[in-house]
Amino acid sequence: MSKQKSTGRVTIPTDVDVVKETIELSKRWGADAIRDCDGTDYPEELKKVDAKVYSTYYTTRKDNEWAKANPDEVQQMYIMTSFHNADKEELSIHLMDHLYPDMLKVNCRDDITRWWEVIDRTTGEVVPVTEWSYDEESGNVTIRPAKLFHDYTVSFLAYIMWDPVHMYNAVTNDWKDVEHQITFDVRQPKTHEYSMKRLRKYLEENPHVDVIRYTTFFHQFTLIFDELAREKYVDWYGYSASVSPYILEQFEKEAGYKFRPEYIIDQGYMNNTYRIPSKEFQDFQKFQMREVAKLAKEMVDITHEYGKEAMMFLGDHWIGTEPFMDDFKGIGVDAVVGSVGNGSTLRLISDIPGVKYTEGRLLPYFFPDTFHEGGDPVKEAKYNWVTARRAILRKPIDRIGYGGYLKLALQFPEFIDYVETVCDEFRELYDNIKGTTPYCVKRVGVLNSWGKMRAWGNHMVHHALYYKQNYSYAGIIEALSGAPFDVKFISFDDIRENPDLLNDIDVLLNVGDAYTAYSGGENWKDEAIVTAVKKFVYNGGGFIGVGEPATCQWQGRFFQLSDILGVEEENGFNLNKDKYNWEEHSHFITEDCKGEIDFGEGKKNIYALDGTTILKQTDKEVQMAVREFGKGRGVYISGLPYSFENSRILYRSVIWAAGDEKNLNKWFSSNYNVEVHAYVKNGKYCVVNNTYEPQTTTVYRGDGSSFCIELAANEIFWYTM
Amino acid sequence: MSKQKSTGRVTIPTDVDVVKETIELSKRWGADAIRDCDGTDYPEELKKVDAKVYSTYYTTRKDNEWAKANPDEVQQMYIMTSFHNADKEELSIHLMDHLYPDMLKVNCRDDITRWWEVIDRTTGEVVPVTEWSYDEESGNVTIRPAKLFHDYTVSFLAYIMWDPVHMYNAVTNDWKDVEHQITFDVRQPKTHEYSMKRLRKYLEENPHVDVIRYTTFFHQFTLIFDELAREKYVDWYGYSASVSPYILEQFEKEAGYKFRPEYIIDQGYMNNTYRIPSKEFQDFQKFQMREVAKLAKEMVDITHEYGKEAMMFLGDHWIGTEPFMDDFKGIGVDAVVGSVGNGSTLRLISDIPGVKYTEGRLLPYFFPDTFHEGGDPVKEAKYNWVTARRAILRKPIDRIGYGGYLKLALQFPEFIDYVETVCDEFRELYDNIKGTTPYCVKRVGVLNSWGKMRAWGNHMVHHALYYKQNYSYAGIIEALSGAPFDVKFISFDDIRENPDLLNDIDVLLNVGDAYTAYSGGENWKDEAIVTAVKKFVYNGGGFIGVGEPATCQWQGRFFQLSDILGVEEENGFNLNKDKYNWEEHSHFITEDCKGEIDFGEGKKNIYALDGTTILKQTDKEVQMAVREFGKGRGVYISGLPYSFENSRILYRSVIWAAGDEKNLNKWFSSNYNVEVHAYVKNGKYCVVNNTYEPQTTTVYRGDGSSFCIELAANEIFWYTM
Repeated sequence: MSKQKSTGRVTIPTDVDVVKETIELSKRWGADAIRDCDGTDYPEELKKVDAKVYSTYYTTRKDNEWAKANPDEVQQMYIMTSFHNADKEELSIHLMDHLYPDMLKVNCRDDITRWWEVIDRTTGEVVPVTEWSYDEESGNVTIRPAKLFHDYTVSFLAYIMWDPVHMYNAVTNDWKDVEHQITFDVRQPKTHEYSMKRLRKYLEENPHVDVIRYTTFFHQFTLIFDELAREKYVDWYGYSASVSPYILEQFEKEAGYKFRPEYIIDQGYMNNTYRIPSKEFQDFQKFQMREVAKLAKEMVDITHEYGKEAMMFLGDHWIGTEPFMDDFKGIGVDAVVGSVGNGSTLRLISDIPGVKYTEGRLLPYFFPDTFHEGGDPVKEAKYNWVTARRAILRKPIDRIGYGGYLKLALQFPEFIDYVETVCDEFRELYDNIKGTTPYCVKRVGVLNSWGKMRAWGNHMVHHALYYKQNYSYAGIIEALSGAPFDVKFISFDDIRENPDLLNDIDVLLNVGDAYTAYSGGENWKDEAIVTAVKKFVYNGGGFIGVGEPATCQWQGRFFQLSDILGVEEENGFNLNKDKYNWEEHSHFITEDCKGEIDFGEGKKNIYALDGTTILKQTDKEVQMAVREFGKGRGVYISGLPYSFENSRILYRSVIWAAGDEKNLNKWFSSNYNVEVHAYVKNGKYCVVNNTYEPQTTTVYRGDGSSFCIELAANEIFWYTM
Repeated sequence: MSKQKSTGRVTIPTDVDVVKETIELSKRWGADAIRDCDGTDYPEELKKVDAKVYSTYYTTRKDNEWAKANPDEVQQMYIMTSFHNADKEELSIHLMDHLYPDMLKVNCRDDITRWWEVIDRTTGEVVPVTEWSYDEESGNVTIRPAKLFHDYTVSFLAYIMWDPVHMYNAVTNDWKDVEHQITFDVRQPKTHEYSMKRLRKYLEENPHVDVIRYTTFFHQFTLIFDELAREKYVDWYGYSASVSPYILEQFEKEAGYKFRPEYIIDQGYMNNTYRIPSKEFQDFQKFQMREVAKLAKEMVDITHEYGKEAMMFLGDHWIGTEPFMDDFKGIGVDAVVGSVGNGSTLRLISDIPGVKYTEGRLLPYFFPDTFHEGGDPVKEAKYNWVTARRAILRKPIDRIGYGGYLKLALQFPEFIDYVETVCDEFRELYDNIKGTTPYCVKRVGVLNSWGKMRAWGNHMVHHALYYKQNYSYAGIIEALSGAPFDVKFISFDDIRENPDLLNDIDVLLNVGDAYTAYSGGENWKDEAIVTAVKKFVYNGGGFIGVGEPATCQWQGRFFQLSDILGVEEENGFNLNKDKYNWEEHSHFITEDCKGEIDFGEGKKNIYALDGTTILKQTDKEVQMAVREFGKGRGVYISGLPYSFENSRILYRSVIWAAGDEKNLNKWFSSNYNVEVHAYVKNGKYCVVNNTYEPQTTTVYRGDGSSFCIELAANEIFWYTM
């Protein structure tokens, strides 16, 4: 096979100190775009280079002069203090306790009796404004009379005096003597007007730039630091920093009801994605998405006016621009770029509809945490590429790229070499699969409270971060990101609006802990939901539940779909019932398992009903079971962290739940470390080794015919049909 | 030490085939009472023996002639069918599915439209009686129209055609061709009248009997068998077999509201003790206790009239005679006897107020399950005695005894010898401690939904049975049963009625899983409860929470006393909050621990708040932590199965929570396998080795002075102060 050097689809970072190297490397990697980063400058010499030039643009910071001149239009966030117990009839609460003092400033410019809320958390009652006061000098709210031994919290507004991402970068990279970049709120009248002018000025002053990379538009996700400058609170999806009396008054008008801080504060849980969203919070999100989109469109239109492309960075200030929602399309951005932490975050980018192209920032970033004496960036890069590639083969991003300080990467020649192979491999697979939908074995729906709004982001707290409480569920999403399924994310409201949408899927998944937005909590008390799902399964659909799926204590059951999933949780209420079904059975689903199955955190106290087939129980706690219901089938799994074996378990679960075992051996690899993807329209298929070791497997084609092959570590073979 | 052979306080079982041996053994064991058992006959020759004669009396069975002649007064129970899914608009439910056919007979003699209930379990709505019908021939209830894909249950009344205990004994002992003993309901008019005559007749015909041992009075706890004669449902505290339209009409009149089967059925959970009791169920229990007591008194009075004692067996048909409730005292029974499964069940008997004496039936029963070739009854007896002795030393029963077939025991001479030493040791300790309250180090309250009604029976499903879900909590009660504390069982209602009752205790315990009656669930949303407990701790009280104490999802917290216990549960809603407190600390409470602490099932996802001292966390899940609150202290423990080491952990937790570490070394043993009990009024104290191996320890007297001793396995030393 003689290969001609391919080029394009790659973005390289640069800086003033690596001009020559940028040009050289651009050639080796086939890069056709060059970018700057936070903390780097774009070199004068590269302004006329034969490549697209990306420029990071910060709509809400890097202009302290404006921010200082307009303190009333600094961005704000809602904060709740910790709980304070009243051991006397007068209780004082210092608002800034445990908050980084330079980051936030209490807003008492606006009417605090309207925008703050003091709540008796013992009873849930709002304390009348006549019974508390705020002393600006001490920074204390004092409640008088407080009820003895009740707990109180104060919800208040604070100005964001240091952009949290700027602070994060400064603290993480130990930047010294850096001026704190104050945020300003583009959605306020003066700043709105100013920001459009500022953007035009920038566009005019930077004619060499081809692509404005917006970071992102206006509102930072929730990110708060404590008094020691440690991260205190992070929610990649948090809306609490997108507020101000100015926009809240608009919201009130639109919603038709009075705004309460509690709609944002949510008892201090701040509506994290595990919370089942309240109507009010959903209303607020919809309002924000629409308003952010409207204003973002202004900026994008200006960008286009100057003949440049608008690229959105999926992260940082991305609140309101959820890319799978209808409002997003109206913004008109040309491209979206995002960091690729794993397959799920890859699909979060590559699945975005309505943009010209998507771009994935591969890891590692060229930062000193990896690129130091003794570091092994090649290892990280390999892991990242092989993980991302699984998802790319299902739905490719259009471009890849890197970020950070190129100078650091240059000190690792092996890394430079490896990235060259990645760029070549990416271009090859992109050419092979472009413009087509890969062959999908089944249509899978993931049902939760969020639906497409949090597509591919389920069980994620912040960009692909591991938590002991999420990896056993996030593993399902990660497995799906590279699986040959057509994946839809469906909300309970979607079913309420149109129960027939279930007709368009083969297998429905519900994944998560009880009472969270991911399993659905009280939605399972709604007969519209329960009967729609039961009807779907009864008529031949599949249902896979992971963790505490479809659970809610209601009418004698915790598992509301126990007749489909075949299991119930022993919460004490069923101890009196004798349980005789404990025998394990071998099964189609577990046929490829090699030893003990890794259920991650699993679940305790699950038992099987009579008539249920147990696939695995540990010490009389069922971890996996199946059951038939009408013409359909249910599968219960206690947890499934991502691994190649578990990915296979999920694959077989879907096939079995859909009642299609006979077609297993089509576009299939007997060895689960190897996957097969078919692109029928393009007449191609590939066989890919996802591991770092050589593998042998039997590959089954679409007609069931097969052949054996050996693959080197990470190897991918392309075939013509 | 020369010892004179002591006698008395021991009951021996007999049968017609062991007359001589009964007399011989009575002498060796010092037995002063002889009893018959279910399945044995009292020998003619022993009727005049110089010992009290106990006779088992069955108020509700062993008279099939009467039962058959009065089928309308056979006892009844409420049963709920399993859930049935409506896949058509007509749904038929066979009532007797999965029930043992000979045990129950559907009652359609009474108005089924009034006493039955068909419930749509998808919505919780009652199906109108016009939309269902019952066909006696098929045994089916048919619902028409049924809502598609809704689940339905039928709650119905059934006659108990085979007494469940009789059936249990017949099945367990493989009795052949035994006539099924039909139950009859003494609370119905005809049977009431008949039963009093029957009792008088029995008393007249059996002048040799000194003690009538009632088994018990009228209502069997819930015990149901499935179609294969296997136990299907058991609840030692269940009230579902104490019902009949006759008494329910009386209940309606008294309660002043209409009765619903659902008050008993409780969604199929049948009000097991883990359920937080509803007002209606509590009303019904109170009604039953009062009515049962009234009728039982009639029988006891007749017994006294004939110059005999009335003894109540704590078990089988004991519903309504809860011995710690006020109604019980009114019955006037002379004595209570019960089986001693462990320390908790010992205290359940020995703590009963208002009776002349209590008696413990020690294990093993002389049944073939233990007394067979190769069996080791001595081992079981030792374990039982040493376990019971711990509790006896705190509050003695007045007598011990054995049950079963004496003939079987005689084949094990070592067992006969061992029981002789037990009888002697029991009499010795009884003599040493009688009439006095042992020295109590602290006053401990156990707070749950049941209070004294389920004193010593917390976390018990059926008489001391192990469940994976209860041993980590029942261990606390077992530890308390032999601990030098004054233990009170307090209900949430007790606190609501009189918050000041907390002034009389030093340390409050709350033990159990979330939303169960034992931890309290929604009671923790009641500010009366929360503030009473907080005030108590703030002013110097101690609070020990085990499992998911004081938990209920409410106003931003799951642990409603997190500021006392110092922990919270990560249920997804707090994932966004950074958690920095993970360091373990050595502590007074764990000073005697020798290795890994056994938390039993423990708890997952518990984390510590800032300011909390962690004693133990496993893989970032906190198992034990402490915190100060005002002048008081809180201790969190994830679970604590019973062991000598864990008993010491609980002891030290109580001392620490009460802030009294300085007085640890009073009436104390440095080695936790050995315990010290002081009987100040009697001028005695003892040192007791609870293990089956020799032990060495330092014993601290009440003044803090100490000495070292060695004890043989199980040994107990008595000292004069």
